[in-house]
Amino acid sequence: MKNCIIIQSGGPTAAINASLAGVIHAASEAGFDHIYGAVNGIVGVLSQNVIDLSEKMASDDRFLDRMILTPAMYLGSCRMRMPDPKAEPAIYDTLYGYFKSLDITAFFGIGGNDSMDTVAKLSAYFNGRNAQISVIGVPKTIDNDLFETDHTPGFGSAAKYVAATMREMAYDTMIYPVKSITIVEIMGRDSGWLTAASALARTESITAPQLIYLPEVAFSVEQCIADTKELLKHRNSVLIAVSEGIKDQSGEYIASADAKEDKFGHKMLSGTGKAIEHILGNALGIKIRSVELNIPQRCGIHLASKTDLDEAYQLGEAAVLLAKEGVSGRMVIIERKDTMEYQVGYSSIPVSEVANGIKKVPRSWINERGNDVTQEMIDYLSPLIQGEVKLPYRNGLPEFLPIDHLTDEKGDGSLFHLL
Amino acid sequence: MKNCIIIQSGGPTAAINASLAGVIHAASEAGFDHIYGAVNGIVGVLSQNVIDLSEKMASDDRFLDRMILTPAMYLGSCRMRMPDPKAEPAIYDTLYGYFKSLDITAFFGIGGNDSMDTVAKLSAYFNGRNAQISVIGVPKTIDNDLFETDHTPGFGSAAKYVAATMREMAYDTMIYPVKSITIVEIMGRDSGWLTAASALARTESITAPQLIYLPEVAFSVEQCIADTKELLKHRNSVLIAVSEGIKDQSGEYIASADAKEDKFGHKMLSGTGKAIEHILGNALGIKIRSVELNIPQRCGIHLASKTDLDEAYQLGEAAVLLAKEGVSGRMVIIERKDTMEYQVGYSSIPVSEVANGIKKVPRSWINERGNDVTQEMIDYLSPLIQGEVKLPYRNGLPEFLPIDHLTDEKGDGSLFHLL
Repeated sequence: MKNCIIIQSGGPTAAINASLAGVIHAASEAGFDHIYGAVNGIVGVLSQNVIDLSEKMASDDRFLDRMILTPAMYLGSCRMRMPDPKAEPAIYDTLYGYFKSLDITAFFGIGGNDSMDTVAKLSAYFNGRNAQISVIGVPKTIDNDLFETDHTPGFGSAAKYVAATMREMAYDTMIYPVKSITIVEIMGRDSGWLTAASALARTESITAPQLIYLPEVAFSVEQCIADTKELLKHRNSVLIAVSEGIKDQSGEYIASADAKEDKFGHKMLSGTGKAIEHILGNALGIKIRSVELNIPQRCGIHLASKTDLDEAYQLGEAAVLLAKEGVSGRMVIIERKDTMEYQVGYSSIPVSEVANGIKKVPRSWINERGNDVTQEMIDYLSPLIQGEVKLPYRNGLPEFLPIDHLTDEKGDGSLFHLL
Repeated sequence: MKNCIIIQSGGPTAAINASLAGVIHAASEAGFDHIYGAVNGIVGVLSQNVIDLSEKMASDDRFLDRMILTPAMYLGSCRMRMPDPKAEPAIYDTLYGYFKSLDITAFFGIGGNDSMDTVAKLSAYFNGRNAQISVIGVPKTIDNDLFETDHTPGFGSAAKYVAATMREMAYDTMIYPVKSITIVEIMGRDSGWLTAASALARTESITAPQLIYLPEVAFSVEQCIADTKELLKHRNSVLIAVSEGIKDQSGEYIASADAKEDKFGHKMLSGTGKAIEHILGNALGIKIRSVELNIPQRCGIHLASKTDLDEAYQLGEAAVLLAKEGVSGRMVIIERKDTMEYQVGYSSIPVSEVANGIKKVPRSWINERGNDVTQEMIDYLSPLIQGEVKLPYRNGLPEFLPIDHLTDEKGDGSLFHLL
């Protein structure tokens, strides 16, 4: 064992730093001397912008504990797709030279589809060179739309945020004895997993959200109006959860149907929630508003699921175990065991087999009318949001690891040519 | 001492149920036999829809502890302004008859300006009748824009929510090595207190939000573009906090300047954040998005300030002490003591003196250029967000008091004639 290097990339989740901490901890246990982190994903590797995480760990014995409870991505991210190593080997040759100068024997990529693409390409290149560098991927996404793994790290925390916030909003919207509709737009361009989690907000006395619309079923304006009218016969406030990515029968996004041009001629996409707000507002003429949960739902570490962070950490550790065995080109996954009590195990698949497709919500987990989820969905989701984390607070606010190393603070634009 | 009755009204805050719990606890200690709660504010009094809170307390010894940690309004709310008792005494005569039938000797109104108006009118009417019913008001608003009181219950929790979420978003938006702008719209139609609280998100290494615009200073599109351009020279991500109520030099809301008509001819107000998103997007042509914190910022009990909930509770208790002394027509207030360590005391003012005006942020607490707050503001705000609450969790989510008694669940529309 010599040294290893880690990248994070793709969009933030509340759990991606837990995976990073898991990799660092296991790599340290496994005897790696230096554990490097590349700043801003593969861009940091190519621009040789790395930090020594072993040093950080040595100077702060709470470094990893604090990292687990820091939102977004400690190492920063990028959205860069590496070229085909056969077509453009030069960039790989340079990278390989850099890795040799750092005595790298393992590379860990924590991220989404793009990161797994990088893992696959690096692994293929190193194999071809017989380079003895293990390349392992650790997945993450709040969308939960990856095949092969039972669920994805980051999803459980986002689901907990959505459900908890939905329950608070249910209390907020029920206080007036007047008819009203509140539409809540939740992230999910192509799959409805996160929006489905809003159903967990319900209790014996709270039925919100009364309607749930996912991208897996074509959205009908007429049906939504009818569903809402029916509910308003028997109650005052109606809470509707919608995925940002719902589409109509012809496959067009509901949001885009409502797009307007501004005075400069730019198309303004007003958002799915806003679009439905206008549709229902015009049709029903009662008090109506929409709420877009937006960025907070993916960086809300203060509402993270302990189950999610624990699993993300352990997946990071599992990745190091694979590297220790000399394995390369694989991505670690979560397998749910067929037990009464929720239990998971960790396994791996060849990263080349990570389908680029999107794991959608099964139609059978959505009710027949397409406006709610079934008990099967609830049973699947419920274990993923269990357990709370205790953030360190200082001066009334959660305290996170500083991220001064992120190029953002430099902002000199020197990396732009790589993007 | 015989019986008392309580109402809540106006918009929700995270602390208004703490005030309710404080009133109930102190009323119980003071020897009131029955403590009634009217459902949906004064509407519940007029429609004789009340619940016996003493019974609830007797059947659940954690009732008040759970109430403190329940968001929005346990008793429901309304937006109803009572008529002038001299012009329309009949409604007051009916109400008085009802109070006599319930042996009411004290009335507590927890709420905003409308509630204080009700308190003033009821108190004047009862005085005229020599009715021996104490009428006391307990203020609340997340806007912190009431005169007389150092700050308002509910504000500290909303401020903590805004600051904590802003800090998480700062981490989220700093991960990419590309230029980007994120605009965060915060509640505050006429005053900038809550938006100012976003400044608390800053740390030694986090400078976000880099720009803060409040309604107290006229918003200049040109200056905002210039401010942002200047920042982008030295850094990648810029986070901008704006009050929903910022206006231009001529006093027009920025949001309305951007309003479009939909296909039915209705004006769509796209929101202040969205408006600035379009303005800066057109001017700068870089990655840009806006986030509206919306309802969650006022019902986010999971991020409540312990200081705020404690003070709200104690204000409720202080209201009962006044009633016990036979005082009527007063509103309790918070006074900050002139001590090194933050300390408050509770006092009261005649409710007739509660100014209907809006306490704005002093110009001297905003920097000269009008795009940030000063250290004086930070020193004022910081004590108000101190301390965390520990919510009871069940099945991965915060568990609140059930609110089955709210007419919302009945939805029979029987109260509409009162509104």
